[in-house]
Amino acid sequence: MLKFTETLIPTLKEDPVEAQVVSHKLMVRAGLIRQLAAGIYTWLPMGLKVLRKVEHIVRQEMDRSGAQEVLMPAVQPAELWKESTRWEQYGKELLRIHDRHDRDFCFGPTHEEVITDLVRKNLQSYKQLPANFYQIQTKFRDEVRPRFGIMRGREFLMKDAYSFDLNVEGLDQSYERMFQAYKRIFQRCGLAFRPVEADTGSIGGASSHEFHVLADSGEDTIASCSACDYAANLEKATAAPAPAATAAEAAADMTRVETPTQKTIEEVASALNVSPAQCVKTLVWRDAESDAWFLLLLRGDHELNEVKATNIAGAMSFMPEPGDVASALGVQVGFLGPVGAENFPVDVRIIADHALKGAHNMVCGANEAGWHLRGVNWNRDLAAPEFADLRNVVEGDGCPRCEAGKLKLNRGIEVGHVFKLGTKYSEALNVSVLDENGRGVNPIMGCYGIGVSRIVAAAIEQNHDDNGIVWPINLAPAQVHVIILNPKEEAAALTAVDMARRLEHAGLEVLLDDRDERPGVKFKDADLLGLPVRLVVGGRSFKEDQVELKMRRAPEPIKLPKNDAVDYITAKVMEAQAIV
Amino acid sequence: MLKFTETLIPTLKEDPVEAQVVSHKLMVRAGLIRQLAAGIYTWLPMGLKVLRKVEHIVRQEMDRSGAQEVLMPAVQPAELWKESTRWEQYGKELLRIHDRHDRDFCFGPTHEEVITDLVRKNLQSYKQLPANFYQIQTKFRDEVRPRFGIMRGREFLMKDAYSFDLNVEGLDQSYERMFQAYKRIFQRCGLAFRPVEADTGSIGGASSHEFHVLADSGEDTIASCSACDYAANLEKATAAPAPAATAAEAAADMTRVETPTQKTIEEVASALNVSPAQCVKTLVWRDAESDAWFLLLLRGDHELNEVKATNIAGAMSFMPEPGDVASALGVQVGFLGPVGAENFPVDVRIIADHALKGAHNMVCGANEAGWHLRGVNWNRDLAAPEFADLRNVVEGDGCPRCEAGKLKLNRGIEVGHVFKLGTKYSEALNVSVLDENGRGVNPIMGCYGIGVSRIVAAAIEQNHDDNGIVWPINLAPAQVHVIILNPKEEAAALTAVDMARRLEHAGLEVLLDDRDERPGVKFKDADLLGLPVRLVVGGRSFKEDQVELKMRRAPEPIKLPKNDAVDYITAKVMEAQAIV
Repeated sequence: MLKFTETLIPTLKEDPVEAQVVSHKLMVRAGLIRQLAAGIYTWLPMGLKVLRKVEHIVRQEMDRSGAQEVLMPAVQPAELWKESTRWEQYGKELLRIHDRHDRDFCFGPTHEEVITDLVRKNLQSYKQLPANFYQIQTKFRDEVRPRFGIMRGREFLMKDAYSFDLNVEGLDQSYERMFQAYKRIFQRCGLAFRPVEADTGSIGGASSHEFHVLADSGEDTIASCSACDYAANLEKATAAPAPAATAAEAAADMTRVETPTQKTIEEVASALNVSPAQCVKTLVWRDAESDAWFLLLLRGDHELNEVKATNIAGAMSFMPEPGDVASALGVQVGFLGPVGAENFPVDVRIIADHALKGAHNMVCGANEAGWHLRGVNWNRDLAAPEFADLRNVVEGDGCPRCEAGKLKLNRGIEVGHVFKLGTKYSEALNVSVLDENGRGVNPIMGCYGIGVSRIVAAAIEQNHDDNGIVWPINLAPAQVHVIILNPKEEAAALTAVDMARRLEHAGLEVLLDDRDERPGVKFKDADLLGLPVRLVVGGRSFKEDQVELKMRRAPEPIKLPKNDAVDYITAKVMEAQAIV
Repeated sequence: MLKFTETLIPTLKEDPVEAQVVSHKLMVRAGLIRQLAAGIYTWLPMGLKVLRKVEHIVRQEMDRSGAQEVLMPAVQPAELWKESTRWEQYGKELLRIHDRHDRDFCFGPTHEEVITDLVRKNLQSYKQLPANFYQIQTKFRDEVRPRFGIMRGREFLMKDAYSFDLNVEGLDQSYERMFQAYKRIFQRCGLAFRPVEADTGSIGGASSHEFHVLADSGEDTIASCSACDYAANLEKATAAPAPAATAAEAAADMTRVETPTQKTIEEVASALNVSPAQCVKTLVWRDAESDAWFLLLLRGDHELNEVKATNIAGAMSFMPEPGDVASALGVQVGFLGPVGAENFPVDVRIIADHALKGAHNMVCGANEAGWHLRGVNWNRDLAAPEFADLRNVVEGDGCPRCEAGKLKLNRGIEVGHVFKLGTKYSEALNVSVLDENGRGVNPIMGCYGIGVSRIVAAAIEQNHDDNGIVWPINLAPAQVHVIILNPKEEAAALTAVDMARRLEHAGLEVLLDDRDERPGVKFKDADLLGLPVRLVVGGRSFKEDQVELKMRRAPEPIKLPKNDAVDYITAKVMEAQAIV
């Protein structure tokens, strides 16, 4: 059993000033972690116990899925990253290292190159496929702005897995096996989570899912349907096409209106007394590779989805600075619009979001500083443009998959990612295995990550109250927190130790608070630490042969005859574990 | 159960060309590891299982000793290393890193600074002592010449522990607890090992022990007594003073002899027809700090122990280049001697090894190129010098601790080290805890390392034969290697799988060779992999309801009725585990 007096549990009364999110505050206050440098943390004994529990669940489920555990090095030679061309492409997040002989290495943020090299050198035949290799290992990503404690740290523990298959059907099966393993992992961790569709970037057609733990503090927005199981992250989520608008009012004449200082949608809408939805937001986009220019049109109340814009315009495309736009198009940003765009000094391709398809009597910039147009209508004042999905979905959008549902938005913390990689790395590194016909083929890869340390923080974000952490049963550093109310009450103290021993013999893990501290301090620390069961031995109850039991999630303690407590607690814990 | 067809076990027939020692050869050939870069290895599934077994034993015994597990970062900020002054002192083995903001970090080769900083910030009172923190973690040392596979790799897995005590008595107890834990760890690993006294360098008086696995290929030499339990590494080992020599011959006259080309002891002894033991080896040593010069005298058949020389002459002392010696003393190296040393241009302090105390009629250099002296005697031809222990012990030296024993020399592989650190780091980092009287004191530290990955290699160095690895029972990746002799014999194949399952239900770990390969290939791989028990199912024996069992350490297989085999194997394995 763990004794409080023999374990470093440096609890704090105050929130650390640098902590913004609740998991960071509570992990420091409960003595689970301590910062060593920005984004770099030491795991103290109680924190490490939680981390190992997550690690254990992940390992068991990965093994059950048939994946093979390996351990790759943290330090990787640059040569491999040059083969995949990521040495040049990867930005400053890649921590580059020079060894004593001035050879280039990096502290691995991910291991596609290393595992692909291993497969290239050690697998020859389709008979050795499918294969899925995983590791649980320390990674480093040199985040520009590490934050939120271990949630977005620089050094972290990750489970990464890489599957190799002979063909697409094999990849589909490997992917599905991982998908199911991930569901079991997060279920066993006791987390409310959601797998959501994620953008696959430049790899067309392949699928990708993120696993999000739902929590208000999450950095990511996820959209999910109220009726069916559609869910996607904001980058990827699409809305059903809005029903064709019925013209509520007759087409007005197109007129020029003076808007000397009104540039934003809000300013223009307010000055002209229309709703932002009536306005057209005109954004400029440019593909650096082809030097192509785009006008992207959105309903004034909608936001551009940059991932979707990039998927349309090219991987190297982006929104130029206002000054660059003004000098290229000859119009000041804030007064841009699609009418007369053919007169810009450069060719622009006009793409409007689907939501503008049925729009009429629109307000947009007049391409002249200080002026806007109103009463603008497609096909009369300008040709109907190309339409595409360009925007972030909003709460209440129709579900793209079912007829009945509306989208709702939630915040989520990404804790896992499954991804159909395809042959990107097996081609770049020239991996070839012989198929049944003796022909060499590039294996098709999938990659699968879980943020092991991040799960600890995510679990707290989702499971806490004003007093501290409320651990899910399978992640708690121990299940039972036994408090000796007053070490000077010898009989009670001896009974507490005896009960702790009997709980351990029943297979439970126990933290015994044997400190010479006031009861109030011990209760506060127990709430902060968040073990599922608190058992208090001593005081008046003890004289009546009773002990006090409080489940962390319950509002009030209950009293129990002391002779029944061990059996009762054991049954309660087993029951909770069985539900998970 | 592990199936061979579903596990990456890339065995090789040939030794890898780069491998020099047997553990390196066998780890690669048995498919336990693969090299990624010099001194950097990936652990494949079977190798990782062994590594995890070692890790598990280490963790259990550390926990049992009362140490608390933590997990410190691999990447450490330079500031801490500057506080301890090791940022400047540590050489190129320290892998220095610059992050994206150009701040200095290192990939930790050890964690004294980090743990001391943690204690400084989180422990305040003597009530929190003693405390012993450990971690099992990936370390990096940028070895100038990585070699012997994982034995002297750059990235490796280490258990490091750091104890903090209020006073010397506390440190002694913490040290002893670690010493006993280490003995249990290496015993449970099934290794023949020896704790030996080690040099403590500049920290006077403190003790230090290394734990060596005995193996002919070991890089270290250890001396141990044939009679008592004295053992020390060569750096530290001392010999009993030789009995005072009885002058076998009368004192001869001192004469000059011409030795035009004879410089080495061998050349001089041969030219003058005396034994090397009759000659005096004269070495020059210099302390860079004080610019003091030393003549170190040894019996011609003895070797200088540089650690002992440094301990006498100072931490910054060393043997200068021959050219520098010649210009400082005015005599060519090879013809130096103690007679007339008072005429050297610089003052020299003459120190002779104890073994020269009773010497007479010695041969030594005449301090003139081309000339030696013979018949040199203390107190007549020169003053008797200061005597000290300067040499490496040799086989047959008397034990310094008991009267009866003689020293013998063995080769060893250092797998553990326990060290009384003292207050070096707690002073440098200003760690202060309040003692019972409310006074701040620097805690006294001990540090304790185990090379977790190195143990895997050391176990192989000590346990192998011409055919492969012979795993100690508790380190084997699995205990039983079940071979399906011929997958086409369906009944036998089914029986093999069934037996493997039953062995697993009995608590054993099983590797099932289900490959479609010739029996010879499977037998060779089984020997190479070295699991303790090999069970062959199929062929003629199977028709007679028998299976073939071979213990890896036994010369020949035996036959057993197939219905008895599972119980028999289970009993054998349990028995072996009980002995460890």
